Order: sequence, then structure tokens, then C-alpha cells
Amino acid sequence: MLEGLGLPASPRGAAGASVAGSSGLAACPPPSPSAPRSPESPAPRRGGVRASVPQKLAEMLSSQYGLIVFVAGLLLLLAWAVHAAGVSKSDLLCFLTALMLLQLLWMLWYVGRSSAHRRLFRLKDTHAGAGWLRGSITLFAVITIILGCLKIGYFIGFSECLSATEGVFPVTHSVHTLLQVYFLWGHAKDIIQSFKTLERFGVIHSVFTNLLLWANSVLNESKHQLNEHKERLITLGFGNITTVLDDHTPQCNCTPPTLCTAISHGIYYLYPFNIEYQILASTMLYVLWKNIGRKVDSHQHQKMQFKSDGVMMGAVLGLTALAATIAVVVVYLIHIGRSKTKSESALIMFYLYAITLMMLMGAAALAGIRIYRIDEKSLDESKNPARKLDSDLLVGTASGSWLISWGSILAILCAEDHPHYTWYNLPYSILVIVEKYIQNLFIFESIHREPEELSEDIQTLRVVTVCNGNTMPLASSCLKSGGVAGDVAPRGKDMPPAANVNVCMRESCDKEEEKQEENSWGGSPSPVHLPRFLQGNAKRKVLRNIAAFLFLCNISLWIPPAFGCRPEYDNGLEEIVFGFEPWIIVVNLAMPFSIFYRMHAAASLFEVYCKI
Amino acid sequence: MLEGLGLPASPRGAAGASVAGSSGLAACPPPSPSAPRSPESPAPRRGGVRASVPQKLAEMLSSQYGLIVFVAGLLLLLAWAVHAAGVSKSDLLCFLTALMLLQLLWMLWYVGRSSAHRRLFRLKDTHAGAGWLRGSITLFAVITIILGCLKIGYFIGFSECLSATEGVFPVTHSVHTLLQVYFLWGHAKDIIQSFKTLERFGVIHSVFTNLLLWANSVLNESKHQLNEHKERLITLGFGNITTVLDDHTPQCNCTPPTLCTAISHGIYYLYPFNIEYQILASTMLYVLWKNIGRKVDSHQHQKMQFKSDGVMMGAVLGLTALAATIAVVVVYLIHIGRSKTKSESALIMFYLYAITLMMLMGAAALAGIRIYRIDEKSLDESKNPARKLDSDLLVGTASGSWLISWGSILAILCAEDHPHYTWYNLPYSILVIVEKYIQNLFIFESIHREPEELSEDIQTLRVVTVCNGNTMPLASSCLKSGGVAGDVAPRGKDMPPAANVNVCMRESCDKEEEKQEENSWGGSPSPVHLPRFLQGNAKRKVLRNIAAFLFLCNISLWIPPAFGCRPEYDNGLEEIVFGFEPWIIVVNLAMPFSIFYRMHAAASLFEVYCKI
Repeated sequence: MLEGLGLPASPRGAAGASVAGSSGLAACPPPSPSAPRSPESPAPRRGGVRASVPQKLAEMLSSQYGLIVFVAGLLLLLAWAVHAAGVSKSDLLCFLTALMLLQLLWMLWYVGRSSAHRRLFRLKDTHAGAGWLRGSITLFAVITIILGCLKIGYFIGFSECLSATEGVFPVTHSVHTLLQVYFLWGHAKDIIQSFKTLERFGVIHSVFTNLLLWANSVLNESKHQLNEHKERLITLGFGNITTVLDDHTPQCNCTPPTLCTAISHGIYYLYPFNIEYQILASTMLYVLWKNIGRKVDSHQHQKMQFKSDGVMMGAVLGLTALAATIAVVVVYLIHIGRSKTKSESALIMFYLYAITLMMLMGAAALAGIRIYRIDEKSLDESKNPARKLDSDLLVGTASGSWLISWGSILAILCAEDHPHYTWYNLPYSILVIVEKYIQNLFIFESIHREPEELSEDIQTLRVVTVCNGNTMPLASSCLKSGGVAGDVAPRGKDMPPAANVNVCMRESCDKEEEKQEENSWGGSPSPVHLPRFLQGNAKRKVLRNIAAFLFLCNISLWIPPAFGCRPEYDNGLEEIVFGFEPWIIVVNLAMPFSIFYRMHAAASLFEVYCKI
Repeated sequence: MLEGLGLPASPRGAAGASVAGSSGLAACPPPSPSAPRSPESPAPRRGGVRASVPQKLAEMLSSQYGLIVFVAGLLLLLAWAVHAAGVSKSDLLCFLTALMLLQLLWMLWYVGRSSAHRRLFRLKDTHAGAGWLRGSITLFAVITIILGCLKIGYFIGFSECLSATEGVFPVTHSVHTLLQVYFLWGHAKDIIQSFKTLERFGVIHSVFTNLLLWANSVLNESKHQLNEHKERLITLGFGNITTVLDDHTPQCNCTPPTLCTAISHGIYYLYPFNIEYQILASTMLYVLWKNIGRKVDSHQHQKMQFKSDGVMMGAVLGLTALAATIAVVVVYLIHIGRSKTKSESALIMFYLYAITLMMLMGAAALAGIRIYRIDEKSLDESKNPARKLDSDLLVGTASGSWLISWGSILAILCAEDHPHYTWYNLPYSILVIVEKYIQNLFIFESIHREPEELSEDIQTLRVVTVCNGNTMPLASSCLKSGGVAGDVAPRGKDMPPAANVNVCMRESCDKEEEKQEENSWGGSPSPVHLPRFLQGNAKRKVLRNIAAFLFLCNISLWIPPAFGCRPEYDNGLEEIVFGFEPWIIVVNLAMPFSIFYRMHAAASLFEVYCKI
């Protein structure tokens, strides 16, 4: 299965993202096998095609393996969740522990090998594993380790009546977290070029192990939320709903009882961070998997910088939203379930607050899109697994909350009896759909924009070319230099700046298109027609304010569902229309994606902010 | 939003499958805007990048719209399935009818426009909408229309107590089916180059409308199967499980009662075909969506032929399997639920039959993979949305049956009490996982192989080159011709055959790699080392026999679950371990994918057969 060490990487794209064209033509790759090659070289497509037979197969082999393990884990989780006969919590924990140990072994082997054979690990994907991503994963990992310690404490307290696996699991999990963060710091950017089959299995195993740990945490958190919800529900007057608590408190006494209660409460406040940690780790590992055997140009990346100047307005508005959110969540959690009136007022307060916030967010994102649309800039369509995953995840996870929102809308439309507070649910649910739709568009457009500096050069050069009126000769000259240089020769720092090549091409070929689009999309086509406040630095400032505001708002909207403020439960109307069990299943399946969406959108917006 | 007529297409790949590299280099696209361009030309990547801003956005806009509609439909289906208060069947049917009418309008507009402006619709994706695919969709569509007629008959019979929507729906559905099949015959291969935003919305609307119609049929079928199952269950001794029938029989009398019973029985025998029709239509439309705005080389396709010579053995074995399956299904359906002994013997018969069949299939697929592995052939990695969808669907839908299989395995391992017939379930479930894993690998490798003729030319030329020992000069000469011609100039029929270019490249660059892989993968590397019976036509014959056998076996294994032979229900063990409700939910969610997998694998194997 192994393909040997230090060979030229099989030049294929990640699955399904291969370079276009199936004709038989191809050029020879450069003779030096390990030199970084220009990504647009067509040579990789066919050059080492034989080598890619096992590669493509390895991809299929490993992804199927990963899915089978994942499905098995999901089934075990389901079995535990529905109290299947003969499936205990220790079976589940044993399975997860075994998966983690296997991953630990693999990571140790990989780290050891990479330090022994440094020359094999030179290629890096500069887009993957950004600094702020590793920073945030470290933060979440620290909290995960604290959670692990609390769980160990909980196990010691109840050690009489808990099985040993409940102690082994948090210990393994903490070690796993430590080593994994170390691994991701050092190797998230790697483009693995050797032992590809084995690596693929290792990485995909890690991806799905983290996803299963995520699912496990989500399940624990959901059970906890559901229990809390059932306790509250009666106060809102929906007493006819089944309220059997799904309690997992051990059947013995803990030695210092106050400490034990504190620990078991503390655990549930830390779960949201653990959940984010697991999903972040699995996305980073997935990008590593997609990058195996890939060829990239290591000189292409523009360094992103975090600059905080000129975003006063966005930051102040965003921080206000954040403070308001924390206040609302605290009031909500205090009031909800105390009495019927208090619960209703808490719900109304939450809906009003969320409606206001989402309207502001939608307006901000719309303004951002509008600025992009009236501006003329090229879209970066280069291959970039990290970015592709980002946009897929945004749309995919938004679907989770769209499902819940449609449920609420349907419930409001179909319910026979409407307590007045339920009406606030209608604009709220519609806004959840619309706001995510708009925000996704804004993020999608932002992350596909080219870095600012480059394209300003283009604009300058462009005007010069237009003034000369001498487009065709330039076009044909760049046909040669751009075509051949870009396709065959390896590109290094000695190449001329990319901008001028780009320019002539646009001039010669896209004139008509531009006219059309100017009419249909923006209205004011070229930078000279932009309003003054939207030019150059001012435009950048506006966009950066929008990004900062949206970033803080998404963090804000992550907090309520993550910490137990769930009007979809407390509202009660959906449960009457759909029935308690079906609605609970819908919410429990969709909510984790909805929560993840907010954190992921915040992460993407942070990247957008740094890029603008 | 519209981008105008007849403009050069924005040269971008489908979402996330764009050509590698984000540097600023690019060549100019050829001056003629509508001439077919070589797919490996890097020009599209950056050439019309500005034009692709709305394109990329249109993709995001439309996919989000489609998902929102789909999620809303799923929610309505769920609401109806769980008898949500205030949601009736007519609400659901109204919604579906509205979606179909909207799609009808769009298709009419599109068909009208395409006949008025023929020059806009010249570009075709030769891989999409293959002849046999259109043939099978027509067959399924005819049965769907018959189903529609039966439903209209059913409505007339019970017209007193059925709402008008139950009559309007089948009429609209039949018209929709007719026009959609006409549309797919004429336009499945289209590569839409104008009005891209509007087309994207239209096509994605059609995709999700068909998916919702699929989900609706699946739900109807599942409800029917569940009712039948509940009736049978008691005879196996599992009487303690809740057996409330979810009956939807109208509350009035039908005028000729025998006819009405015949109709309502007939309907359920036709559902499986309707289900296949909807999913096939949506996959074809999805490929159309992915192709919007794409650039392909229209000369690249090798015509596939259906040849029936020399596949005697595979066909005979396959047909035997098919006959055996029909016999087994008939016996199963007669025996199951009659008495406990009869049910048990039916289950044992089914398991033994399925175990034998899947072992044969696994062995055949393994042999096929082995033949591919010891052979040396290049993999076709060209961009091909239809093929990419095929392999994604194979792995994705296989996950459905893996979930059920893991459930069975877990149930057997955890159950306290094991009636002896349940033990047959263990090898059966393991084989379901293993066989699909192997078969997917075989299909994946087959559909990524290059057409036979081309690569035999390569082999011949290769030997010549090796004998001359003169590789480097040839390599550098093809660097020029291959690199430049393949990247910049449009390729037509006047180009030299691709093979010779390919050869030099492989010679110069892959020598070392080959050695490595020969050692690790195949063992016998070059065609001269192949056993005599595996060379040339003989090898092709063996592979074709394998494909034919697997094709017929997959058709065979499609029949039992599609027509109500579901040991996952009748076995009873899983229901005891997981509980009735959870297991029913798992099976009802996973089974449609499992059934679709078989039909889809059969379709892919048919394609493989024609290609070999």
C-alpha cells in the first residue's frame, strides 16, 4: 500500500476538484521532482497520472473506512441515547477511548517521522491552519482539559458506583487533546507527500474520531438541556407533555456533596467550548486530509494582518451587542421557568432583542455586499480546500437552523391557540432564515476576493492600458508569457508581478462582458464612478467595520443557544403542533449545527476582517 | 441579475472545483468567444474572472434558495408524518403542486427560449445524460405516469371523501413527468451559457422539487411497509411491541370495491419505480446545474458501445442470481407473517441466499480490482461533474445501509436472547458492509479509467520509446508542443493523437514512481508480465463479465427491499434491543438510501460495462 519515500508527489487535486479537461494532451512536468511547481501547470494532470492510481484509490479507501467507523460510532451513541438493552455508557466510552488511543499512536508515529525526515515535510499549504485558528483551538483545548479534570474529579467523588471507563476516558481525552493541539500547531499546514495511503488512513481516522467526540459531547449537552427544559416546561402551562427525566446521576453519594454539585454544574458550562474544540479540530484535520498529495505554490499567500485602527464604530456597536446579549441571557435564564408570566416576559425580551440584532446584522451584510457589487474586483478562484470547506460548512450548517425556523413558522401558522408571545416567534424565525442567507453571501464574496493590494495595482495598470488604447498587441504578448510561464515553468520570486499579465487579458477579452454586468449588477462600474466615501482606504474601513460588527454579533448569537437559552424549547408552541418527541428530535438534531454555524461564521468573519 | 445573451461564458469550474493556483499569472483566452477551448487551458481561471463574480454568487444564491425550499418541504413532510396538529395531507400536496407548477413554467420558458435562440445552446457536456440513462428514466417515467393514472382512479373512486388536491396532485405530477422527461431528453447535456443566474435558480428549483417528490414517495412507501410490518410482527412472537397502524384509508366507500382494492394494491407495487424516477431526474438536473457556465472540450468523449459478445458467463450467473432473487422474494413474501415457523424459515432462506450472493459479488469485485491493479493504466482525472456525483452518491448512499448493518451487528452482540435464525444476520450484516466497500472501489476505479483504445496506443508507443532509450529529447520536445498547444491553442480534430504526448511525459518523469508502485501495489508491473489470460481482449472480456455479473446482482439486490422484503423489520431482534420506535426511525431514514444505492450501483456498472 505504501508508495515509498521522497518521491515526487502524485500531482492530483483533491477529490473531485481536479483540473479541467480530459483530452489526451499534456506537458512534461519539470525535471526536478521536489521543486514546488506552479499550481496552474497542466503537467500534474497527466504527468504523474500513473502514480495517482493508488492515490485516488487511497482517497476512496480511506474515506470509506472513515465513514464506516463514524457510522458505527453514531449507532453506539444512538443506542446509548435510546437506552438500548445491553448497551451501557462504558461500552460507548470504551469505543471512543480505543479510537483516541489509535489516533494517539498514529500522531506519535507521524510526529516522530516528521522530525526524523525533515526534507519530506517542506511543502506547506499557507491557507490552512491560520494563526488565529490555532490560537482559538488552543484556547478551547485548554478549557477542554479543564473539563477533563472536572470529570476526573467527578469520577473520584463517585468512584464507588462508576465504572473504571468513566475515569479512563477523561484521562485519555486530556492526553489526546494535548497531543492533538501540539500536532495541529506543527503540522496543520503540512502537505503530505510520502506514505500517502497510510497517512490518509491516519488523518481520516483522526477526523472522524474528533467528529464522534463532538457528537458525544453534543449528546451529553442535549440530554442536559432537555432535562432542564422538561423541568421548566410545566410552569408555562404545558403540563400535559411527558416529563420523564433522562437522569444519569450515579446511585451513590459523593464525599464532599457541595463540591460534587459544583463540579457537575461546572461541567455543563464548559461543554460548549469542548464542542467547538472538537469540531474545529476535525475541520483542520479534514483540510490536512484534502491536502495530502496536493501540489501548491508556496509563494502565493498574502500575509494577513490584524489591524485595529478605524473600526471604532463596528467594534463599539458589536461590543454593545455582546454586552446586551450577556445581559439578556442572564435575565432569561433567571426568569425562565420561574412562573408563567416571568417565562413569557423572558421569551418576549429574547425575541425582541434577537429581532433587533438580526435586522442590524442583515442590513450590515447587505451594505457590505452592495459595496462589493458596485466595486469591480476579480474573484480568487484558486484551489483552496480550507476555503471550500468554509463555504460548504456555512451553507450546510445554516440548514440546521433553517429547519428549526421552518418548524416554528409552520407551528405558528397551524396552531389553533396563539398565546400572544408566540407571535414574536414569526418575525424571529423569518429573520433567522434571511439573515443567514445574506450573511453567507457576504462571507462568500469576501473570502473569494483577491487581496486588496494586488488588485489596486491592477486598477492602476488598467487605467494606463485603457488610455493607451493599445490592447491587442499587449494581449498577444501576454498570451505567450502568461501562458507558457504560468503553465510549465515553476514560478518563484523572480517572476514579474502578476498584475500586469492579468490586466491585458481582461482588457482584450472581457470588455463586452463588463459592459453587460455593469448594467445588470452594480450600476456604477469602474472605480472612478464610486462615491468618494467608498474609495480606497475609506471603502476598506467601511468593510472592516461591517466585518468587525458581524464578527461580534455572531459571537453574541452563539452564546444563547450554547448556554441553554433555547426559545425553541421554552416557547412550547412547536411541541404542541408537532408533538413533544418529534420536535425534541428535530431540535436536538438541528441545534448543534445551528450553534456551530455561529462560531464558524465568526471565525470566517475574523478572517475576512484580517484580509480586508 | 441577468448577464445578457450570447456572451462568452465566464470560464469557471463548478463551485469549489476550480483550477488550482491562486497566483496572479494567466494567459489570454482565445479571441473567438464561443470556440470550444481546450479544457486544460489556464486562461479560464483568470481570464474572465470579473464575469465570474456574479456567477459564483449566483451559485451561492441559488444553492441557498434550493436548500431553504428543500428544508421547508422536509419539514412539511415530517409534520404530516407525525400527524402534526393542523397540517393535513392537502397542505403538503398543495405545496408540492405549487413547486411542480413553478418548475413547469420555468421548463416551458427554457424550452421555448432554446428553440428560439439555438446558437446559445450549442455547447454540450458529452458525459452528462447518457443514452441509457435517458432510456431508463423514460421507462421509470412511464411507470410513474401509470401510477398517476391509478391515483386518479383512486381519487375518482373515493371522490366523496377526498379533498380536491388529491386529484389535482396526480394530474399535475403526470404532466410534470411528461414535460420533464421531454426536457431531459433535449437538454440534459446542455451547458448553459446565458442568463446564468435565472437558469441556476430554475435548475436548482427543479433539483429540489424532484428530491421533495422523492421524499414524498419514500414516506408513502415507508408508511405502507411499516403497516405491513406491524401486521406481521405479532406472528414472530414479538407481540409486546406497539402496533398502532398508521392508516390513511379514506372514510367512505369506493363504488366498485374490488377495483378500488386492486388499485390501492397496485399503487404500492409501482412506488419503487416512481422513487427511482424522481431521484434519477434530480441527479440529472443536478449535473445540469453543475455544468452551468462551464467550459468543456466537446471533442473529448469516446463513444460508449453496448456489446454483448463474450459475456456469457457473467450474464448467465447474473441472470441465475436474478431468477433466484425473484423466487426468494416470492417465497419470502408468502411465508413471512403466516406463522412463526414459516417466518423463521423465510428469514433463514433469505439470509443464506443473500450471504451467498454477496460473497460471490465481493469475490468478483476483488478480482476486478486485482486485474486493474496488476495492469498499468493511467487514471482519467478530468473534470466531470456527472462522474464526481456518481462516486459521491455511491459512498454517501452506502452509508445508509452501513448504519442499518451496524445496528444489526450491535443488536446481535447485545441481545440477551438469540433465536437461532438471528445468527445468520451477523455474517449477512458484515457482508453488506464489506461488499459495498469493495464494490465501490471497483466502480470507482473503473469509471476513472481511460478508454481502452487510447491507452493501448500508449502502451504500444511506450514500448517503442523504451526500446529507443531516447527519452529526454522527446520529453523536452513534447514539453513545447504539449505544453503550449494544450494550454493556449484551441484543440480541434486536426491535432495529433494525444497518446504520443502522453507517453514521453510518463517516460521522463515517472520512472522512479513506477518502480516503487510496482513493488508495493501490483507485483507484476508492465503489460508483458501479465498472465496471458489477462492481456488485451481476454482481460477486457474478464472485466466485462465481472461488470455484467455485478450489474445483474445489484438489480437483484434492489428487488427485495424495494418490494417489501425487509429482514431488518421482520427479524425483530433490533427492535427489542433499540426499542421499536428508534429502530423504525433508523430503518426508515436509512433504507431509501440503501435501496437507491443498489439501483445507482447498477447504473454505474452498466456504464462501466459499456466502457470496458
